[in-house]
Amino acid sequence: MTARLGSVSLVGAGPGDPELLTVRAVRRLEEAEVVLHDALVPNAVVEVATTAKRLCVGKRAGQPSCAQEEIVRLMIRLARQGRQVVRLKCGDPFVLGRGGEEAVALARAGIPCEVVPGVSAALAAPAAAGIPVTHRGLASAFVVVSGHAPEACGPVLASIEPATATLVVLMGLRSAGRIAALLMARGWQPDTPAAVVAAAWTAEQEVWAGTLEALGRSALPLGLPGTIIIGATAGFAQRRGSVAAQGQGGMTW
Amino acid sequence: MTARLGSVSLVGAGPGDPELLTVRAVRRLEEAEVVLHDALVPNAVVEVATTAKRLCVGKRAGQPSCAQEEIVRLMIRLARQGRQVVRLKCGDPFVLGRGGEEAVALARAGIPCEVVPGVSAALAAPAAAGIPVTHRGLASAFVVVSGHAPEACGPVLASIEPATATLVVLMGLRSAGRIAALLMARGWQPDTPAAVVAAAWTAEQEVWAGTLEALGRSALPLGLPGTIIIGATAGFAQRRGSVAAQGQGGMTW
Repeated sequence: MTARLGSVSLVGAGPGDPELLTVRAVRRLEEAEVVLHDALVPNAVVEVATTAKRLCVGKRAGQPSCAQEEIVRLMIRLARQGRQVVRLKCGDPFVLGRGGEEAVALARAGIPCEVVPGVSAALAAPAAAGIPVTHRGLASAFVVVSGHAPEACGPVLASIEPATATLVVLMGLRSAGRIAALLMARGWQPDTPAAVVAAAWTAEQEVWAGTLEALGRSALPLGLPGTIIIGATAGFAQRRGSVAAQGQGGMTW
Repeated sequence: MTARLGSVSLVGAGPGDPELLTVRAVRRLEEAEVVLHDALVPNAVVEVATTAKRLCVGKRAGQPSCAQEEIVRLMIRLARQGRQVVRLKCGDPFVLGRGGEEAVALARAGIPCEVVPGVSAALAAPAAAGIPVTHRGLASAFVVVSGHAPEACGPVLASIEPATATLVVLMGLRSAGRIAALLMARGWQPDTPAAVVAAAWTAEQEVWAGTLEALGRSALPLGLPGTIIIGATAGFAQRRGSVAAQGQGGMTW
């Protein structure tokens, strides 16, 4: 007797606040039998899956974790056992984080798979500090890169004409100095506004605001997941009021 | 007697499917007394606000609409009358669409204002066709521009080193030919994969997949809101199965 084939939902966990999960994400978490989640998804979000078996499979900088191949094998095995599986990924499942690879591997294995887009930190972390990634007269375009490996994001950052777009660097706090130096060498003005939003939309949220030149020599909260914003719109972070009440991160003003 | 001051929530409506609203967006819509929405927010999303007065204030290409100043004045007047106002904007409120300007104007007027990030079409429209904006070995960065005015996005597009990032063009279907020509003149290969996703995550969703060269001379669904994706990851659109069941747009495979 063969078990009925299960399925995998690649679900975006949003930026950190459980209320920024989508309605469909909540539904999938509530219905899931197994949830495989990244290490950086906050507990408050993972715990929306009240009945599922919850397994942390994610990577945290410098910590051991499941190999990517292991995660894929586990998803395929569970689905073949008939399980409804949620693969819960930080932010949006198709922004960095190898969600595309997981979808391809599942398709090749014949496992039904859907993508549930989420609110990406690329947009929501700036918004948590009052920073729009576009703003009429300041920026009508934005660029999102992973700062995890500066040699990977270097070519695209170096190619962008200074001050033509807002730059958003995910996973780049440890590379902030090198990225600032690269951009100033490319012709970005040292006094270009820059901001860092760490642990956005959580009670631990921290906002740093300054200039590109200062970004390169400032102590940043390296222990927290953080987003760097560079460009004129980053200047909004300095002109805003305090972080929202209720320790939920975000911003009201 | 002065009315208690109301407030304004700038809420992201997500890409089109009501289930891709965030939990907080649903809550704000349910609690709102007045909802001011863009013309392109689908009825099924606007109708989540069951008790609010609902006003369409948005722009639709080529149609008359409220002036931006009029929308801001209306929000301020309603909030001063003590109303809980939701300003419901397509996708994410801080990606194009002048949400930042609205936040600034409200702050200047002393109106309490919060931002509720949403799922942006910049990420979710590609995902609806199975396209990740990043993919290991293909693209670790992506660029989002408005194609509404090619002269505005031209400089940033022209500056990007060919094939170093996925390009996502919002509101650019009418400019597709000019954008394709600009990129090929810049050195992008004519056979670079390109895709268009129109009316993503709705029952009307259409996906076109081809090459950069073909993009410039193809008939695109100009009557629908559409997102153009250019770069190696756009090739995933061609290798996927059919659109998800239930006429909800999106993609399973």
